[in-house]
Amino acid sequence: MRNIKLTLCYDGAAFHGYQQQDNAETVEEALKAALRRLLGEDVKPVSCSRTDAGVHAEMFVCNFKTESDRENEKLLRGLNALLPLAAAVLKCEDVPLAFHARYDCRGKEYRYLIWNAPVRNPFYVGRALHVSYALDVARMDRAARLFCGTHDFSAYCASGSEVKSKVRTVFSCRVRREGDLVVFSVRGDGFLYNMVRIMVGTLLSLSAGGRTEADILRSLETGERTDAGPTAKADGLYLHEVFYEEGDSNG
Amino acid sequence: MRNIKLTLCYDGAAFHGYQQQDNAETVEEALKAALRRLLGEDVKPVSCSRTDAGVHAEMFVCNFKTESDRENEKLLRGLNALLPLAAAVLKCEDVPLAFHARYDCRGKEYRYLIWNAPVRNPFYVGRALHVSYALDVARMDRAARLFCGTHDFSAYCASGSEVKSKVRTVFSCRVRREGDLVVFSVRGDGFLYNMVRIMVGTLLSLSAGGRTEADILRSLETGERTDAGPTAKADGLYLHEVFYEEGDSNG
Repeated sequence: MRNIKLTLCYDGAAFHGYQQQDNAETVEEALKAALRRLLGEDVKPVSCSRTDAGVHAEMFVCNFKTESDRENEKLLRGLNALLPLAAAVLKCEDVPLAFHARYDCRGKEYRYLIWNAPVRNPFYVGRALHVSYALDVARMDRAARLFCGTHDFSAYCASGSEVKSKVRTVFSCRVRREGDLVVFSVRGDGFLYNMVRIMVGTLLSLSAGGRTEADILRSLETGERTDAGPTAKADGLYLHEVFYEEGDSNG
Repeated sequence: MRNIKLTLCYDGAAFHGYQQQDNAETVEEALKAALRRLLGEDVKPVSCSRTDAGVHAEMFVCNFKTESDRENEKLLRGLNALLPLAAAVLKCEDVPLAFHARYDCRGKEYRYLIWNAPVRNPFYVGRALHVSYALDVARMDRAARLFCGTHDFSAYCASGSEVKSKVRTVFSCRVRREGDLVVFSVRGDGFLYNMVRIMVGTLLSLSAGGRTEADILRSLETGERTDAGPTAKADGLYLHEVFYEEGDSNG
C-alpha cells in the first residue's frame, strides 16, 4: 500500500467547485475519473479543503492510497494527459501512510484579486472582482491587520456551517496595490466557510466609508454575521498556498 | 460630423477574430451592435488591424464617423455596458476628421507568451503556448535581433496574402524569461499576415536545434516561406500596443 500526495492547481472558472456533486463538473470528479483510468482502481482522494464554484487554486493538495506501483513521474504525466486543461498536477510524490491532506494541514494562504480601475479588464473576467471606484488601499491594509491573531470568527462564517469551533488564528493579513490590481492576502491556520470572502467584503465596505475599524473590532467581539460586511464574489478568490509540517510530506 | 477614436482591449479566446464574418462572434460585430444600439446609427469602424481567431489585444484602435453628439464619457460607459465582458473600451475621444486608424498607424508592438515548464499552467490555457522542454532563451534572443531592420519578410508571411510589398521594418525584437514565462516582443512599422507567429515558430525551431542563425539570415534573403519555421499557434499572441504620430490623435 502506498500513500500518494498530489499537488494540483486549477482555474476555478471551469469547474463547479472542488467537491464531487451530481450533474456538474468538479475537480474531484475529474481527478477520480483520471485516476480510475490510469490505475484501474476507485480511489478516494482526501483533500486539503473544498473550494466553492468559481474559486481558483494556485496550489491544492490531496492524497490517496493505492496498490499501484506506477512510477510517480508516469502518474503525473498520465494525469495531466487525462485531466481537463483547466486543471494540472504539479507534483506527485510518496508520503508516509499516516499523511492526511486535511488533518496534517498547518495553514493556508488565500489571495483575493480586485481589478480596481474605471473600466473592466477582459483578461480578469472570472479571475478578479472589478471595482470601478478608487479603493483606499492604505485604509484597507491598516484595517486588515485587525484580523491578525486568534479570534472567534463567527461573524466571518456563512450561516449553515457546522464546525464546532469558530476560533481561528490569522498569521498575517495584508492589502497592497500592484498597478490597477489590488491584492488581499491572508495566512492562517484554518478558514471558515466564506471567511476570506466576508473579510474582503468587509474591507471593501470600510474603503467605501460604510464601516470603520471600530465596526470590525465589534464584529470580532459579537460574532454576529450581520456585524461583518457582505460576501465578496468567488471570482477573485485563490487558494494560493497550503502548508504542512516539514518532513510530513516533502518540505 | 465627428470622428471618434476608440481604444479597446479584448480576450481573443472569446471571439472568432476581430473582423466580422457570418455565424461567428467577432469583436467587430459586437462593437457594431453596441454602437447601433447606443447611437441608432449603423457605423462602420475602421480598425488598426485585424486579429485572427484566438489572438488577444491589450490595445486595439479603431475610429468611426458619427452625427451623434453623445459625450465621450457616456459613450464609453454605454459601450462597456453593452459589449461582451471579454472586450472593453478603454478610451473614447474625438480626433480630427482625417484620422484613420489603419493608414495613420505608425507601428505596433506584438507580444507572444510561452509557458515554459514541464507542466501546463491552467491559468494560461488559451493565453500562452505551452512548451514543456527548457527553451534556450539566450539563443532565441540573440537570433531575434536578426529580424531587426528593414527586410523583405516574404518568408514570414502566410500564403494567400495579397499585399503589394512585403518589405517591413522591425524596430526591435527580443526574447526574455520571466520565471516560467518566456516573452517574445517585437515592434515594427507593420506586420504581414502571420508574421509574428512565423517568427516565433522559427525561434522555437532554432532553440530546439532544428535551425541556425544562418538559416534565419537565408530566409530573409530568399523570401521562401519554406525557409522559415512553422507558424506558432494563435493562443500566445497579443497585440500589445499601437502607435500613432503625436498629435494625430491624443498623444
